[in-house]
Amino acid sequence: MAKGKGGSERAGGGSSKAVKARDARTLSKIVDLADDVTKRAFSGKPPTVEIPLRTRSNTIWNKKQGILQMGDATAERELFNLNQAKQFMQTCLHASTIKDLIAAEKTSSLRGVFYKAKHTVAGTKENTFDTQDESDPILEDLEVTLGALREELHIFAENRGAMVGNITVIDKGDEIDCRRMGSGGYAMPSIVEPDVIQFKKCEAKFVLHVEKGTVWNRFNEDRFWEENNCILTHGAGQPPRGCRRLLQRLNQELKLPIICLLDCDPWGHYIYSVIKQGSISLAFESSRLAIPEARFLGIRAKDYDECDLTEAVKIDLTENDIKRAKEIAAYPWFESNKAWQKEISAMLDNGFKMEVESLITKDISYVTEEYVPQRLKDKDWLD
Amino acid sequence: MAKGKGGSERAGGGSSKAVKARDARTLSKIVDLADDVTKRAFSGKPPTVEIPLRTRSNTIWNKKQGILQMGDATAERELFNLNQAKQFMQTCLHASTIKDLIAAEKTSSLRGVFYKAKHTVAGTKENTFDTQDESDPILEDLEVTLGALREELHIFAENRGAMVGNITVIDKGDEIDCRRMGSGGYAMPSIVEPDVIQFKKCEAKFVLHVEKGTVWNRFNEDRFWEENNCILTHGAGQPPRGCRRLLQRLNQELKLPIICLLDCDPWGHYIYSVIKQGSISLAFESSRLAIPEARFLGIRAKDYDECDLTEAVKIDLTENDIKRAKEIAAYPWFESNKAWQKEISAMLDNGFKMEVESLITKDISYVTEEYVPQRLKDKDWLD
Repeated sequence: MAKGKGGSERAGGGSSKAVKARDARTLSKIVDLADDVTKRAFSGKPPTVEIPLRTRSNTIWNKKQGILQMGDATAERELFNLNQAKQFMQTCLHASTIKDLIAAEKTSSLRGVFYKAKHTVAGTKENTFDTQDESDPILEDLEVTLGALREELHIFAENRGAMVGNITVIDKGDEIDCRRMGSGGYAMPSIVEPDVIQFKKCEAKFVLHVEKGTVWNRFNEDRFWEENNCILTHGAGQPPRGCRRLLQRLNQELKLPIICLLDCDPWGHYIYSVIKQGSISLAFESSRLAIPEARFLGIRAKDYDECDLTEAVKIDLTENDIKRAKEIAAYPWFESNKAWQKEISAMLDNGFKMEVESLITKDISYVTEEYVPQRLKDKDWLD
Repeated sequence: MAKGKGGSERAGGGSSKAVKARDARTLSKIVDLADDVTKRAFSGKPPTVEIPLRTRSNTIWNKKQGILQMGDATAERELFNLNQAKQFMQTCLHASTIKDLIAAEKTSSLRGVFYKAKHTVAGTKENTFDTQDESDPILEDLEVTLGALREELHIFAENRGAMVGNITVIDKGDEIDCRRMGSGGYAMPSIVEPDVIQFKKCEAKFVLHVEKGTVWNRFNEDRFWEENNCILTHGAGQPPRGCRRLLQRLNQELKLPIICLLDCDPWGHYIYSVIKQGSISLAFESSRLAIPEARFLGIRAKDYDECDLTEAVKIDLTENDIKRAKEIAAYPWFESNKAWQKEISAMLDNGFKMEVESLITKDISYVTEEYVPQRLKDKDWLD
């Protein structure tokens, strides 16, 4: 399984030696996959690849660990099956590109890998791939099949999110003092494994993760991280894998609590759910991404009364919001959590959503100087 | 006008004294606006505000300067006019919020300002603002009316884009060595005026600006900026104001050429057009944002043949692409530019678009090690 290996392999990372050993392991997995295909072919059997299923039905809620996991179900992908031949060929093509990337000691984007494999099959008018939509799932298939994560396959996504606060990180050998990153901050990269990013000096006692860059700006401008000895991050909405992985490493390796400040709406609750337990589509990665200890500080449905807010903060729940809220309330981890059942019910009873930015109606810095410090002091959050 | 003042006022920036002087000027402009309204009211005249028109018809192509500019046309906004009363009130409300922000020496997001002004008018069921879509244009109106740019009004947008390379910048007093920013880079802030960002040591001879973060990653991983002594930036698609302004400052203050590497499609051409000449909606800002000297290095329509590319790189032009390409070709600055007329025609003749990332089909680092260095050496770009 990807999970166990992913975790232990990377634990010791950080040196070029470790990277080379990891790359050698990934390469040998790709060679094994290819050997298996050719062996079957030479022995007269139809070439196949066995792919673990990344479906809702093959997703298991591991209550003890508090994360979503992928089950054991797999599907065969056969060359001599009209419905599967194309995907079989696509899987082999991408495996070959990844082999090239690892050999060259370079990384590529999802789109780059798509282009690398895209061509018209000789003697036909058939393209190997027509759009990137076909390509990305094949790469996810390869992640689970090889038991190697995207970063181990040398593939990155868009960088998104920023960080600032009482920590020094080493990024590819460069020392980055997040206490002195001005108004812009350190742009979080897509690949944040220990061989790329190491943590150096850290005084911070927790991480405050906010949803949006604009909210992050308010906290950075007010030097919240300095006043409250923490690290301040945002993920520009639903945080990408790089941001989630970095938060998890800060939690696991430095034992920092991850405190989330998100909107009081189904989208905010969903972002929290993904940060905390993982997502169905990336369930095979949960052990590397999910943070079961993550906390939800706000915005809370009770805040309208408790903070004495005005009508201005209200945004009516739409039909779709109500539907989403009920779906989220039925997630097993929320379903068994009384405080969360109460929270979602309270939002539905309110009939409106509230955004973090709406707290400006109290005062420009109410959120940084009163709201968050008071909630932290009272340990008033949802687990 | 905003233009002349914006430029000269900020030229000497950098000190807290300069900021205070600038803030004092902006405050006095707001007070003047309010005084004007009350004076008219007390003398029995209907209160009005005169707003410069931000329309296509009031946009002038200044051929000599090579930028789009706003013309002199204005419109009255009257309190005692059923069609204008709401906007009049909204304008006054936002002016008041900005006054508060300046007084508090704080900045806010566009959404924050929207919330700050949003409320139900006492004794009615009428909201001051229903959505942010109503609020943002009022802020742009205030920019042109007050002759003060958004940054001077203490308002920021989302941060977007990253920077790395042979330069040290000071951001709010923090020294940021862009040569040592690892794989993530320095996240470019939204407000980059000289009182926030100053340039310190810079060996770089030019700026390479690429469209997307994923392409930026390729160049950063290959240490292109080190090999070629430059600064490497991206704007995550259409670059936001902060990114454009920083590029303009690098060009004007440090005399660095801005070389753009964008896709060979109408969107890439439009991004270049906005970087170079400005946009209609922000024509009042062109003198502060546009970079008439910016160059377009590629991707070029001729590259399919010249670089011996394969079918894989082709993406068919859609009907809409063709329409957009013809619109862009008719922009006055492209219309009078033979090389650009040829370029757009060649793309239309090809019948397909090409993305920077498709050059991976040649080799993983073809774009960083061959394509861009050769074009730079040959000075093979479009002006």
